[in-house]
Amino acid sequence: MCKRSTKPQVQMAENKPLTPRRARRGCGRLAAMSGKGNPEFLRRAIRLATENVTSGRGGPFAAVVVRDGEIVGEGVNTVTASLDPTAHGEVNAIRAAARALGSFSLAGCELYTSCEPCPMCLAACHWARLDRVFYGASAEDAARAGFDDALLYEEFRREPGARKLPATQLLGEEAWQSFAAWLASPVKIEY
Amino acid sequence: MCKRSTKPQVQMAENKPLTPRRARRGCGRLAAMSGKGNPEFLRRAIRLATENVTSGRGGPFAAVVVRDGEIVGEGVNTVTASLDPTAHGEVNAIRAAARALGSFSLAGCELYTSCEPCPMCLAACHWARLDRVFYGASAEDAARAGFDDALLYEEFRREPGARKLPATQLLGEEAWQSFAAWLASPVKIEY
Repeated sequence: MCKRSTKPQVQMAENKPLTPRRARRGCGRLAAMSGKGNPEFLRRAIRLATENVTSGRGGPFAAVVVRDGEIVGEGVNTVTASLDPTAHGEVNAIRAAARALGSFSLAGCELYTSCEPCPMCLAACHWARLDRVFYGASAEDAARAGFDDALLYEEFRREPGARKLPATQLLGEEAWQSFAAWLASPVKIEY
Repeated sequence: MCKRSTKPQVQMAENKPLTPRRARRGCGRLAAMSGKGNPEFLRRAIRLATENVTSGRGGPFAAVVVRDGEIVGEGVNTVTASLDPTAHGEVNAIRAAARALGSFSLAGCELYTSCEPCPMCLAACHWARLDRVFYGASAEDAARAGFDDALLYEEFRREPGARKLPATQLLGEEAWQSFAAWLASPVKIEY
């Protein structure tokens, strides 16, 4: 049986590895703090981000996914270490949490991230159906440290034709066939 | 030695698996078509997207990454199959191409995707330093098939406080420590 704790309780992954079973258990709940956020989870993300730099592993970013007051997934930036330009801290944390919970939906979970999510990670939070995001540093802080997240947000405010990355439509009609197959499919899994 | 071909040449991954060595070779170049795009690469992406649906594997989306007229990475939507909400066709193609080329930068490459990239995938294209994007169906087509990419683009046009996904800053000053560690680090790899 799970006991409700009255003080913040953060499961530290280096002490207790997160197994899918532990993640699904949902012990150590802190539902009452959910709306305001629990700074201890953010401190955990900040510490992971700093350690990621001092170890030489990657960029100064990390995130944790929390459900019912317990960490169910953690991620640090591994763009250079894993040769993956999408391996930001938030994306890695979302992937880890989804794997741990055995679900592509993280509805009911919150993300704590050491820095305001870039557009890729913010959109990833939407697709993961996360309830809420708490962040530490701002996109402007990231810019001061040499990261161009703020410029990328500007890009999204522009009309498609005015963006820096050229995007051209071809074969618009042919491309509908994939959606037609989807609409007609008897075996599809909605997501 | 590589020979330059004068007609479109598309390497089909199911016939010739893409090894990192083959991807780096850069044979079958079509540089002259680069600016306008080669519809055959887009047809390949559309076909992969349709097959992904008819096989019951996942959503109606796929993408290929092309360098010097040759496919260096392919990806289909595997959100439900791999329990990963970030596993869109474009993200999977970018990850595959980066792995095949042994680089976290895809500068010099182009992406062909069966549908206009969602904000997550468009931002991933930026971080991957892709030169250009060619797409088939539009975000409006995706909306007609039940996918809410268009709504997500609207979300990015709103000011942070007006977005549907609540995002709250905490511990802004403490969070700077990760960036301070980055700026001071003698071992960091810029990306």
